[in-house]
Amino acid sequence: MKSTFGQSVTLTIAGESHGEAITAILAGIAPGVPVDRDYIASQMQKRQAVGDISTPRHEADEVEILSGVFNGVTTGTPITLLIRNQNTRSQDYKAMSTVARPGHADYTAQCKYHGYQDYRGGGHFSGRITAALVAAGAIALTALARRDIRIATHIARCGGVSDRPFGDLTADMAQLNNSTFAVLDTQAGEQMQAAIRAAKADGDSVGGVLETVVTGMPAGVGEPWFDSVESVLAHILYAIPAVKGVEFGDGFALSDMRGSEANDGFAVVDGQIRPTGNHNGGINGGITNGGTLRFSCGIKPTPTIHKPQQTVDFAAKEPCELQAGGRHDPCIVHRARVVVDSAAALALCDLLALRFGTDCLGG
Amino acid sequence: MKSTFGQSVTLTIAGESHGEAITAILAGIAPGVPVDRDYIASQMQKRQAVGDISTPRHEADEVEILSGVFNGVTTGTPITLLIRNQNTRSQDYKAMSTVARPGHADYTAQCKYHGYQDYRGGGHFSGRITAALVAAGAIALTALARRDIRIATHIARCGGVSDRPFGDLTADMAQLNNSTFAVLDTQAGEQMQAAIRAAKADGDSVGGVLETVVTGMPAGVGEPWFDSVESVLAHILYAIPAVKGVEFGDGFALSDMRGSEANDGFAVVDGQIRPTGNHNGGINGGITNGGTLRFSCGIKPTPTIHKPQQTVDFAAKEPCELQAGGRHDPCIVHRARVVVDSAAALALCDLLALRFGTDCLGG
Amino acid sequence: MKSTFGQSVTLTIAGESHGEAITAILAGIAPGVPVDRDYIASQMQKRQAVGDISTPRHEADEVEILSGVFNGVTTGTPITLLIRNQNTRSQDYKAMSTVARPGHADYTAQCKYHGYQDYRGGGHFSGRITAALVAAGAIALTALARRDIRIATHIARCGGVSDRPFGDLTADMAQLNNSTFAVLDTQAGEQMQAAIRAAKADGDSVGGVLETVVTGMPAGVGEPWFDSVESVLAHILYAIPAVKGVEFGDGFALSDMRGSEANDGFAVVDGQIRPTGNHNGGINGGITNGGTLRFSCGIKPTPTIHKPQQTVDFAAKEPCELQAGGRHDPCIVHRARVVVDSAAALALCDLLALRFGTDCLGG
Amino acid sequence: MKSTFGQSVTLTIAGESHGEAITAILAGIAPGVPVDRDYIASQMQKRQAVGDISTPRHEADEVEILSGVFNGVTTGTPITLLIRNQNTRSQDYKAMSTVARPGHADYTAQCKYHGYQDYRGGGHFSGRITAALVAAGAIALTALARRDIRIATHIARCGGVSDRPFGDLTADMAQLNNSTFAVLDTQAGEQMQAAIRAAKADGDSVGGVLETVVTGMPAGVGEPWFDSVESVLAHILYAIPAVKGVEFGDGFALSDMRGSEANDGFAVVDGQIRPTGNHNGGINGGITNGGTLRFSCGIKPTPTIHKPQQTVDFAAKEPCELQAGGRHDPCIVHRARVVVDSAAALALCDLLALRFGTDCLGG
Repeated sequence: MKSTFGQSVTLTIAGESHGEAITAILAGIAPGVPVDRDYIASQMQKRQAVGDISTPRHEADEVEILSGVFNGVTTGTPITLLIRNQNTRSQDYKAMSTVARPGHADYTAQCKYHGYQDYRGGGHFSGRITAALVAAGAIALTALARRDIRIATHIARCGGVSDRPFGDLTADMAQLNNSTFAVLDTQAGEQMQAAIRAAKADGDSVGGVLETVVTGMPAGVGEPWFDSVESVLAHILYAIPAVKGVEFGDGFALSDMRGSEANDGFAVVDGQIRPTGNHNGGINGGITNGGTLRFSCGIKPTPTIHKPQQTVDFAAKEPCELQAGGRHDPCIVHRARVVVDSAAALALCDLLALRFGTDCLGG
Repeated sequence: MKSTFGQSVTLTIAGESHGEAITAILAGIAPGVPVDRDYIASQMQKRQAVGDISTPRHEADEVEILSGVFNGVTTGTPITLLIRNQNTRSQDYKAMSTVARPGHADYTAQCKYHGYQDYRGGGHFSGRITAALVAAGAIALTALARRDIRIATHIARCGGVSDRPFGDLTADMAQLNNSTFAVLDTQAGEQMQAAIRAAKADGDSVGGVLETVVTGMPAGVGEPWFDSVESVLAHILYAIPAVKGVEFGDGFALSDMRGSEANDGFAVVDGQIRPTGNHNGGINGGITNGGTLRFSCGIKPTPTIHKPQQTVDFAAKEPCELQAGGRHDPCIVHRARVVVDSAAALALCDLLALRFGTDCLGG
Repeated sequence: MKSTFGQSVTLTIAGESHGEAITAILAGIAPGVPVDRDYIASQMQKRQAVGDISTPRHEADEVEILSGVFNGVTTGTPITLLIRNQNTRSQDYKAMSTVARPGHADYTAQCKYHGYQDYRGGGHFSGRITAALVAAGAIALTALARRDIRIATHIARCGGVSDRPFGDLTADMAQLNNSTFAVLDTQAGEQMQAAIRAAKADGDSVGGVLETVVTGMPAGVGEPWFDSVESVLAHILYAIPAVKGVEFGDGFALSDMRGSEANDGFAVVDGQIRPTGNHNGGINGGITNGGTLRFSCGIKPTPTIHKPQQTVDFAAKEPCELQAGGRHDPCIVHRARVVVDSAAALALCDLLALRFGTDCLGG
Repeated sequence: MKSTFGQSVTLTIAGESHGEAITAILAGIAPGVPVDRDYIASQMQKRQAVGDISTPRHEADEVEILSGVFNGVTTGTPITLLIRNQNTRSQDYKAMSTVARPGHADYTAQCKYHGYQDYRGGGHFSGRITAALVAAGAIALTALARRDIRIATHIARCGGVSDRPFGDLTADMAQLNNSTFAVLDTQAGEQMQAAIRAAKADGDSVGGVLETVVTGMPAGVGEPWFDSVESVLAHILYAIPAVKGVEFGDGFALSDMRGSEANDGFAVVDGQIRPTGNHNGGINGGITNGGTLRFSCGIKPTPTIHKPQQTVDFAAKEPCELQAGGRHDPCIVHRARVVVDSAAALALCDLLALRFGTDCLGG
């Protein structure tokens, strides 16, 4: 369904980069989940631009809650979240409204919407619309946390620099969720930021990889064949602009292993059956195995760059050279991690509600 | 939805490895598509075991067509495809019905189905159920081919050996679709098969990577945000057992590029706007751009191996050592490629029907 | 979705009147539900023709269970049910394959399927396909009965004759579920059968009204706005051929009442809150209120009659007179009641699973 | 899906009677449909209270368009419509927040939402939320009208008084769409209003029947079995509060006819095949036959009345007598007709887009 994700817990989003507002309707969240406006604001802040490595477009991103919350908790009915657009400089985009910016959706939107699309700032295809996911995700993350299901994402790689792998999950996850540039190794983080600045100085951009862990997921969740945990997570993760790869556990690295290395065994720990490894990301046969979920998203470099590029004007059907002006991010990897956390939280709330019923995460 | 994929063109599958039959109901395929039983049989054959690098379990895999086809063409109403199971040796599995085989769904099925699941040969989680996808996929591939939309997959990597990249697509795709071990470089294929035999000799298994191309897709297909082409393709690809990574275009390799390298420009070719590169897999903003679709699936090594493994008996809640008997594949990568082709065809038929209506691929 | 109903518990059906087989895939039924082949057979028998008031086409309607049942109970994975067609006399239909039979789907199928449809015996639009609903419904009814949720339907009206209203539900429901012509007042039943025979003698047909009750439904089930209990039940009931009206509680009769008469109050009975009336069919605001569900389906007279009718040949685009041969029912109301029971059971299983999770009706 | 309707064209709604705002996100509407704010306002006005036969609660019901419309036409991306609540007197409801008002959803909401629901003015179950359907429906109606598909609804019966049947559809439909109390026979309309006033004087309320026609629908639309035109229309119609009956064509009256009377024949008119009757509502086998669609909705009397009623306080689990204060409608039938038009338009846009593709109603 075009703009709605999920079956039991659903998210519907709308909005354009330079339109009036971004809107999310989050439905199916159990009644009785506390809604903390400060926490929502802090999540929105993580998606915001940071210092000199991001776009100078700054918006308060205040989230208005218009329905579904009463006396500070969810009612169980649909929650409307509204984020007004501000600080838009639409005139930046007028001149190039029919130029197919490489790596962007301008030309494909033209093919689908025949010239009626709102071209300003990428319109409906702008990364700005992820604000709706983050706002809704904050409520989903709260619902999960009350059942001790926790999510954290680090920048595993950015600008050619690698972070250290996860170690002590409790400490690592706390560190990530308190940081603005989410790395486990601070020194690696500084090298990444240096790489971002170098790309910016060249009028260019960089990409990276985000690795996510989820602790506390009960075993037995997932609706194979077609709604396997991987299918449902990948579905929403691939809705995030710039994600071009998704892998679970060791992912593509498994392809070079032998079975004896790739298989995760099981053991009895404190009377409970637990997986003894995590090559498979905590999922077997599309169903959670009680271990930590682990997946990675490959993020392509920001498509808007200031270097000249060869492309076409699709109205004139003529080649042209594009040298982008406007305000842009040399890297969006560090901003995307809260989007990934949010998207994962929404998918997991849906899978849990399908498995255990609509009250399962409630008050 | 548990066992149904798609919105306009839908596939519903059922069956267990050692049950009576595997069934697929394919609905929403336009009326008037010729159904060629020989072509279906040839596709089923590609999924079958090949020589000494596969399981000795051989089945005719005859596909019975029970509805939806009349006078040799599709009627437009649901098509039922039935594949009877034969040659099952269920006694192989009785002894280990409560042993959590590492890398398999035994324990997770137990958590979801509480002991009621059919444990024989992996039951509903067996790769054998992919026979349903291949049978249905044959009809989807036929429907696409009549609009000159063609799909081919090669074994890009297996057992640590890489195939050459795609070159002349027309020649390469024809070669792949006529081969039983789908590589572009025959010598690489022989090295891969040697690696598979070596793993088999060690009682072990190998994995690999499948890379797929789709030519002829019109621009403007895809239903973002949530039903982006990537989301829909990844959803069904992740339903295939052993797929643990999916990437589009250059995928994770994009994460180490700069924007100036990763962006695909556009040009006017014979009066048509065409992308000038394919780093993004023919998709921008979740919508096809008229270029070749390109994506890769990472396949983990077959979980069943003959080496001893540490795991648990989940009924007894006790550790145990497993040394698997039975008949198994040291590699399923070469068999999985036709499953990937089929799954992709089903997803693309669905996206095309959503975009252009239920008749769009009809007679 | 064309041929699939439901979200958590789903039914997919396929088949044509004179094709190979009718197939149902029932997915999402909880693991551990006993599957009693004798009960399924007895339900199939209720759908069968009875004596001289029905079509002489008699089929054994044996239901093959091909997946999803192991050791006599459901596994939790998709259940495939197959009913082979037998005793088809397709030559009856060849001559009139392009004649638009009044009241049938011949012309509309032509508009949708462009001549590719299987025209024999109504093809995919034949009432025969309801065999799939009844077979699947038998399993759904069993799942519900284990939680003391019970369904029964009587012929409230047929051929202009009315049955008495429901009285003592326990006795009435038992009587109905053991009868082949489901009325509460035997004498009314005989008058109805006389009316059917009179219509048959005239080469004509009659319709009727089926009224259904469901006891034992817990309060709080339903997913408004759009998946209200009424919406979900009406959705599947309107998939039954010949149903042209659906109403809940007093239905259209409520339109002539005043609010003071139509409202159902509440009382405390044995410490439980219970509705004190049933004008609203046990549903308020689209959610069950803990009372008996009650709804009625209006069934139009069988469209195939032996009287001459004016219509067109849609291939020739010319008017023609039709005088139907073949074997037909002068009334299908008495056969439809088990289809209504089955459809309702499937819808309620789905709503219950959405509300309380996939295990809620399990073993 | 709880708060989303549709598959290709989807509507998601949110809001509570006394919350901040009512919101609709309408997705999948083709690009290029003009959005006329005056027309939207005029539709909203039809839903408003009229004179002395309705609630004294008056709101401007201004519709803010926050996304999906650019330069006065739809973009093809999701359209957000926001209606702020004003003039709410929430204190009216505080005292009775745990009283189960007969005929209302208070008790069922309690069972589903466990006390977290917004009880003020019926909360999410208030008829006020239909404002979202009307706002979205105005755009759907515009899209249909550009393809000459037109919808009109009259009050066929109200307070025991019947309107005349449809005659000349063109004139009748124009008359209805310009009227505030939509009857064909003005005198009948005055008698209805007198009946409403009489009920009001008694502290009571009345119901009625709305009959709807749709002209211009092409033949061949509908996705049986499960997404028959009747199924899809009934699904959304039953989401409208107070609808307790839905019938197509002659509906329940067909149950007393014989087949020879109920069947609609076909004729060739100006070279086109057309149905010669409309007993079946323009639908055969769940698919449109090119004739006028015709269906009726039974509307129960408004549940809020001023007469004393016996019910319970569900917090105290004790019986109580309720004598409602507040502002209420003695009848909502005349206000509901624009809701029915809107709901039908949304369902038909969805079915048309599924059949003919996402551009089919576009600019």
